[in-house]
Amino acid sequence: MTPAPMGEHALDLFFNPRSVAIIGASSDPSKLGGRPIRFLREAGFAGQIYPINKRSDDVQGIKAYASLADIPGEVDQALIIVPASSAVAALEDCIAKGIKAVQVLSSGFAEESEEGRLRQQELIALAAQHGVRLLGPNCLGIVSVRNRYFATFSTALEALSPQPGAISFVTQSGAFGSCAYALAIQRGLGIARIVATGNEADVDVTECIDFLASDPETRVICAAIEGCRDGNRLRRALLKAAHAGKPVILMKVGSSATGQQAAATHTGAIAGDDKIFDVVCKECGAWRAQSIEEMLDIAYVSTQLPPPQNDRATVITVSGGIGVLMADDAERCGVEIPAISPSLQARIRELVPFLVGVNPLDTTAQIGAIKRGIPNLVDLVVAQTDSATHFIYLAQIPCDTRRFTPLLADLAELRRKYPDRLLVLVGPSDDAMRRLAEAEGLVIFSDPGRAMRAIGALCEVRRRRSALHPGLPDAGRTAKKASDAPRGALNEIRAKQLLAEYGLPVPPETLCATEEAAVAAADKLGYPVVAKIVSPDILHKTEFCGVILNLAHADAVREAFRSLIQRAAAAPGSPKVDGVLIAPMVRKGVETILGVHVDPIFGPMIMFGLGGVAVELFRDVAFASVPLSPGRAEELINSVKASQLLRGWRGQPPQDVSALIRALMSLSEFAEDWAPSLEGVDVNPFVVLDDGAACLDAVVTFRQ
Amino acid sequence: MTPAPMGEHALDLFFNPRSVAIIGASSDPSKLGGRPIRFLREAGFAGQIYPINKRSDDVQGIKAYASLADIPGEVDQALIIVPASSAVAALEDCIAKGIKAVQVLSSGFAEESEEGRLRQQELIALAAQHGVRLLGPNCLGIVSVRNRYFATFSTALEALSPQPGAISFVTQSGAFGSCAYALAIQRGLGIARIVATGNEADVDVTECIDFLASDPETRVICAAIEGCRDGNRLRRALLKAAHAGKPVILMKVGSSATGQQAAATHTGAIAGDDKIFDVVCKECGAWRAQSIEEMLDIAYVSTQLPPPQNDRATVITVSGGIGVLMADDAERCGVEIPAISPSLQARIRELVPFLVGVNPLDTTAQIGAIKRGIPNLVDLVVAQTDSATHFIYLAQIPCDTRRFTPLLADLAELRRKYPDRLLVLVGPSDDAMRRLAEAEGLVIFSDPGRAMRAIGALCEVRRRRSALHPGLPDAGRTAKKASDAPRGALNEIRAKQLLAEYGLPVPPETLCATEEAAVAAADKLGYPVVAKIVSPDILHKTEFCGVILNLAHADAVREAFRSLIQRAAAAPGSPKVDGVLIAPMVRKGVETILGVHVDPIFGPMIMFGLGGVAVELFRDVAFASVPLSPGRAEELINSVKASQLLRGWRGQPPQDVSALIRALMSLSEFAEDWAPSLEGVDVNPFVVLDDGAACLDAVVTFRQ
Repeated sequence: MTPAPMGEHALDLFFNPRSVAIIGASSDPSKLGGRPIRFLREAGFAGQIYPINKRSDDVQGIKAYASLADIPGEVDQALIIVPASSAVAALEDCIAKGIKAVQVLSSGFAEESEEGRLRQQELIALAAQHGVRLLGPNCLGIVSVRNRYFATFSTALEALSPQPGAISFVTQSGAFGSCAYALAIQRGLGIARIVATGNEADVDVTECIDFLASDPETRVICAAIEGCRDGNRLRRALLKAAHAGKPVILMKVGSSATGQQAAATHTGAIAGDDKIFDVVCKECGAWRAQSIEEMLDIAYVSTQLPPPQNDRATVITVSGGIGVLMADDAERCGVEIPAISPSLQARIRELVPFLVGVNPLDTTAQIGAIKRGIPNLVDLVVAQTDSATHFIYLAQIPCDTRRFTPLLADLAELRRKYPDRLLVLVGPSDDAMRRLAEAEGLVIFSDPGRAMRAIGALCEVRRRRSALHPGLPDAGRTAKKASDAPRGALNEIRAKQLLAEYGLPVPPETLCATEEAAVAAADKLGYPVVAKIVSPDILHKTEFCGVILNLAHADAVREAFRSLIQRAAAAPGSPKVDGVLIAPMVRKGVETILGVHVDPIFGPMIMFGLGGVAVELFRDVAFASVPLSPGRAEELINSVKASQLLRGWRGQPPQDVSALIRALMSLSEFAEDWAPSLEGVDVNPFVVLDDGAACLDAVVTFRQ
Repeated sequence: MTPAPMGEHALDLFFNPRSVAIIGASSDPSKLGGRPIRFLREAGFAGQIYPINKRSDDVQGIKAYASLADIPGEVDQALIIVPASSAVAALEDCIAKGIKAVQVLSSGFAEESEEGRLRQQELIALAAQHGVRLLGPNCLGIVSVRNRYFATFSTALEALSPQPGAISFVTQSGAFGSCAYALAIQRGLGIARIVATGNEADVDVTECIDFLASDPETRVICAAIEGCRDGNRLRRALLKAAHAGKPVILMKVGSSATGQQAAATHTGAIAGDDKIFDVVCKECGAWRAQSIEEMLDIAYVSTQLPPPQNDRATVITVSGGIGVLMADDAERCGVEIPAISPSLQARIRELVPFLVGVNPLDTTAQIGAIKRGIPNLVDLVVAQTDSATHFIYLAQIPCDTRRFTPLLADLAELRRKYPDRLLVLVGPSDDAMRRLAEAEGLVIFSDPGRAMRAIGALCEVRRRRSALHPGLPDAGRTAKKASDAPRGALNEIRAKQLLAEYGLPVPPETLCATEEAAVAAADKLGYPVVAKIVSPDILHKTEFCGVILNLAHADAVREAFRSLIQRAAAAPGSPKVDGVLIAPMVRKGVETILGVHVDPIFGPMIMFGLGGVAVELFRDVAFASVPLSPGRAEELINSVKASQLLRGWRGQPPQDVSALIRALMSLSEFAEDWAPSLEGVDVNPFVVLDDGAACLDAVVTFRQ
């Protein structure tokens, strides 16, 4: 086997090296420094292996060198497996030799101590200075199955041997990765690449996803992420995979409170806000899995079958009960089970007179009495419906060689006849039967629910891919300079002025310093009016009782002015008062909340929800990345359950949703311009009327 | 092996017969009538087998009889496997012979046609008349593993052979059952009994659960139900199992719209309302599973390990990443992962200096370097904490015989040392290693998430068992006679009067036929007052605009009276008007909704929710069976998310929850008294005040 040709990607030298030097090579094949040599030899790596060992010129039967400098010719990659204290010197040697890809497998860096953190900094600085790429430190290495590049010391490979295939694994934690790929190997799933990134001093999970998205050997990417340092890079990598038609199945480790605490001790990385992470996965076409098993189920279907072209499925079943169960599961998983047409029903009944139902199609166990009953029925149903997926529940047939073997031959024929459809066999089977089915390009699940969940996930991935929302900064747009940004919390008037400049509808209102000014402003607006205290120190006016509504005449305005000023003077901490705002009473509409949350990892996110208990109690809010498109804004609104209230609820007139969309777009532009300096925006309430909308209050906070 | 002794239960003869006659016995061991004989012989059933066959006196090597009458002595049970048209005659023969337990395996009854339904009716009538119990028709039969009673024609047994154990399966659908037990057999789970009830002409899933609850061979009951005819019998069976300490893991087939449609074609049984079914499971200590795999996971833990005594768990892991993942899963599954004490931390660090975290406890892979590191750590943690469950993540060790065998011996020792704790091993393993662990009374899961979900379910079962709520009619209480019940919908006044008799707080109010009467009533109450239209034809007064609030003086009352009467006169369908109700304005409080839903299967259920979008949009309502206890009423309130608003929300004073509890209790008594004639009650709004509460409107509907 000749070494794979080198590609264009920055990480190619890690996965497809022609030669590798092992610094810290050991003659003992069970030691850390000995294992990679043993694995590479046993796997049959065809490239050059250069053990570096001062004491011997032969390591495990391979010619060894006293130093890197002694190796004749170029070396593509080095593994450093020396004690942490010698790692910097080893990297210097690599640089001297011109090696551009270095894995540091040793531990004893940022994960361990302050001293280790400084050591890691030194490695980073040195590598950056000389254009060397670094994987690790404290990582488990790389396994590349097809080219037999087993550059790891993971003992998992002592018990398990991966078969070549199209699933790739990238995880931060080596042990997490081993668990996932060990389960994959045990199920007989074929693997392309495995990489664990450890402390991520340089190369991280994101960059590996980016590599795998363009790796011709990889068709599905399974990734586990603990922390993410650059949300936009992750977005780009996910989008690249989506455009390449490769499902990315992500697990985020550390989503619970205890989990986040444990993750912090484990890697020191900060996990982004969990809900935001979900949104980014959705927008960028990835699937977030909750368990390793779920991840592998989806990967299994993705490598054995074509992607589903629609969300429709037929359930053909020899058992009514399991058919019903699968219909229940389908509803939960977002898979449609449409009734088949009367004409197809009639044609089916010619073949299977006792068939029950219109989908699920229950053949009952009597189908066994009809020669080729199942394959002929499947053939007819696949040909005559446009459902992408066809579940075939076979009960115990796959446990019975005598009955399963001929059936499998017929089904394999159908798999070839309908290459763009998904035939999903379901039923308890033993490993031998399962592998026979898989060799024919079919899949078989023992548990009906798992089959449905895997298909449901792939249908959702399809929907996501058809409506990708990059959420990346608009290249043509120049953000405002940080030096132009205000500092801290703005008062209501400045906040609204700023937002109004971007097109948010703000009612006419006047800041008044005296009772007389307030009455004059009210006279000009026309009654009734509203009076509000304005103070940078009072952000939650309702709780402060700083708003007085429905002032019908001048005396009421005077009284309100006095009362607000007195209340502020008596308040703890003596809030600074800018004056009292006089504004028109806005007609009754639907109160919503618009906001900008600036996520430390994923940047500005637009938030939308409805006022009152919907947000406070039911957390019925949704987020979308900036910049919004009008379509995404509408989707954002619709993804909030309470948005039904905007569409004409219980006889109320529908509200002006297009005004709301415009406001969200304005807010998005505002956020895009000011993001680096912005801390957050709350427009609450933002009242949507039957014609137009009004921002009644706003809090805008910039960094200090 | 001697036949099992007969117990007291009505179904004993089905599971533990000393003799069985097979009507329709065939010499061909592959035919329907031949298979049970083959299975019984091959399994080694020690009781008498009497094939009934007119043409031969030897069937598969067993002496056959021309008719039941020819059999000398008593026969405990008969299997009928003749065509449906001959089934009635066969049952008559059984009756003549004095057989008390008859399985009708034949199909062609209610599931097929009207003719079949009538045939089934005939069987039922005949059996009832002679005190014969009937299983089926259209059922798959019974498998009782320990006494080798394999009375079924399921072909699943051709490929798979169940090992004796403590898990029992009862399902309506035979094919559903086969799928479940085939998966169980493949996993090597031990089985006690398997029964499918088919058309349930007599014996149903409920009665089988009742049998299994007192069956000494059964420790876990796995059940799948499609329809339930008698909710109270199901409650009693579930409660019996809960008191016996046997987990019941239920699947309800047909919970989605498509599923319910498919279920209807499959069995003709009506599935009870899905949400009510959940409530009954909770109240009666059962667990509702969503997949067969989940069902088997829970059964697996239940038969291998003791039940958890609390909800706390420790996660000991050789991989930080998996530890974090399991902490995330724990939060989702209701399992607590409490931090270990500083003193235990100190003791652990003497043993494992590099340990990270306080729970999960991450030993890192370095633990491999410490002799007996894992078992010593587990021993210390189990001894020094009170957590019931201890997860031990072993990475790939269980794939490696050399490493796993000695570790397993040490862990098995700990299993014996701490018999009341749950040691749950997690890590990819092959079947051989898994079975070794299981032979030592341990469990091992490949997927960490599945391990956590199974334990989470058992913790929830524990919590449910400690707060059982039978929801069965109070034996000491005499319900009202149906003949005393009103008919149809009551008007608001009668509804409130009836509820007030049971103690619901109804404000003083007067039904007025004239303007003058309305003013007099208002004068008496004191202003402001409310006026409401009263009509049995107008149930939703708000939508009709039939309520006018805040009438401050006599003129306003007059105007309101006129306007309501005119509005009713102009309404479509000319609603009958009983008059206008004058009532006091109730102070502002929290609006709630109380109701009684009379479920056709589970009887009267109390409903509780908060007014407005909480119920309408977020379906934030909860149900509880009647009769309520005060404790259950409080639990019901707390299970509604929006009930936070009652406890003092955002600076509001807390409301009078005890008045709400009293009202729910009153409503429960009302429902209990009138249940057979009642259709439903809606008390909406029921305003909870800071002192007391008030029923502002009520709809009570009786059957016509």
